[in-house]
Amino acid sequence: MTGLVHRRRFTIEWGACDPAGIVFNSRFFEFFDASTWELFESALSVPRSELFALHGIAGIPLVDARARFLVPVKFGDAVEIASFIGEFRRSSFDVEHRLSVGGELAVEGRETRVWAARHEDDPLRMRARPVPAAVIERFTVT
Amino acid sequence: MTGLVHRRRFTIEWGACDPAGIVFNSRFFEFFDASTWELFESALSVPRSELFALHGIAGIPLVDARARFLVPVKFGDAVEIASFIGEFRRSSFDVEHRLSVGGELAVEGRETRVWAARHEDDPLRMRARPVPAAVIERFTVT
Amino acid sequence: MTGLVHRRRFTIEWGACDPAGIVFNSRFFEFFDASTWELFESALSVPRSELFALHGIAGIPLVDARARFLVPVKFGDAVEIASFIGEFRRSSFDVEHRLSVGGELAVEGRETRVWAARHEDDPLRMRARPVPAAVIERFTVT
Amino acid sequence: MTGLVHRRRFTIEWGACDPAGIVFNSRFFEFFDASTWELFESALSVPRSELFALHGIAGIPLVDARARFLVPVKFGDAVEIASFIGEFRRSSFDVEHRLSVGGELAVEGRETRVWAARHEDDPLRMRARPVPAAVIERFTVT
Repeated sequence: MTGLVHRRRFTIEWGACDPAGIVFNSRFFEFFDASTWELFESALSVPRSELFALHGIAGIPLVDARARFLVPVKFGDAVEIASFIGEFRRSSFDVEHRLSVGGELAVEGRETRVWAARHEDDPLRMRARPVPAAVIERFTVT
Repeated sequence: MTGLVHRRRFTIEWGACDPAGIVFNSRFFEFFDASTWELFESALSVPRSELFALHGIAGIPLVDARARFLVPVKFGDAVEIASFIGEFRRSSFDVEHRLSVGGELAVEGRETRVWAARHEDDPLRMRARPVPAAVIERFTVT
Repeated sequence: MTGLVHRRRFTIEWGACDPAGIVFNSRFFEFFDASTWELFESALSVPRSELFALHGIAGIPLVDARARFLVPVKFGDAVEIASFIGEFRRSSFDVEHRLSVGGELAVEGRETRVWAARHEDDPLRMRARPVPAAVIERFTVT
Repeated sequence: MTGLVHRRRFTIEWGACDPAGIVFNSRFFEFFDASTWELFESALSVPRSELFALHGIAGIPLVDARARFLVPVKFGDAVEIASFIGEFRRSSFDVEHRLSVGGELAVEGRETRVWAARHEDDPLRMRARPVPAAVIERFTVT
């Protein structure tokens, strides 16, 4: 029994790179966010725009994001991001991202997110809710 | 004797916000990068485009970036980012960022960067170099 | 009697530039959008987050955007954007942007926007409404 | 004999959308830039990072970019961009982009670009050069 791993491949765009010719750091966090949406679509078999309404939550907002940059990623590089849940806790979880170029690990990312409903008093604030067991189960490959 | 703190204030743009009406996470890393450039300009009294050539390096590339999101930051919010060096090590250092809205801490960031010359064998790779004592001194307020 | 001109100055960030060392084209459209918000704040004397609610509309969505790139704008350049209404029509208007570096015109932009309420049948669609005379008047300097 | 059309399909990411839940305008210009690179890769059968060196130029910088927004494009929409050369002139050309959602045309873009070598006196400026006939020919489908 292991965890579901979502992989996607794409080529680094000109507009994602800085004057040093390498990916500007904030772009990796965009890449990770997009991978997380795809991971959830894949696990829950629901298009991203219906993902949260269906589960009665408002979203899975970030409370912590981190990246370690091991090897520069350049314009035109063919990259692969492998994404999986590192750990489910009561109402939060870690999404791990491994971005590699030609099989070499280049950037490691971790997002800590919360399973969250909209706060009653302030629609822009969120309130953590327990992650349903049925959701967690969908990330397990038997 | 304390460390130099660079502060800047700005208003959150429409284009920095996501469908939840709050700043999209990658934008904070853009904000932090911009603050780091200003902190170095301020400490070294050199325009950013001449900053590294003057010190014989190619740049201060990131090896690690992290943010903790404490309070959602919304479209139109007037924010302040206070940035300072957390620690200088031999050839790397931490830049700390504290983003607040109306005096309330909203996002904490840390960038770990390397004082780096261009690698002889591969111009897109960098090689760490010791941070000059004269540079470190400029970040100290006596 | 002339039109209100909003001017803002800022320095080109590292993250806005591409591997050629110049501003990536899409960033100019971000710059223009931000200038338009400031122009409206300035004309209507209302913070941007209350701008449209106050006038009973949902926003001023773009129907056309255009830029002419005359001179490359580089990392670290100190730029000024002057923004003004080119023309008010019944329910649409043009916002003109002139971005200059050191007094030299570098990029000319034009946004065509609509004064729009939310569509009754589809909250993501907009419906054009006549621009109130009182709004138009605020963009005139007597 | 007709022109080569490059098509790509992708899903609209959360981070590309604004608080109105639709794609922020500058993102379309990113999309178009990426499509242009793919169109040239496809026509010239060369990876993007070698595209210009191979033809002795520095790039194909934009001199004009334009978009008409016909229908709002939303988070999660499956879009297709069809891109082709509208016209080749002596040293410049138009790249046309048609972005559609579910077969409905949503955004029309046009980029005017120059076939350009680096200027001898200023490496950040470009100098227009005639587009080689052999290049133009590659965009024709016989």
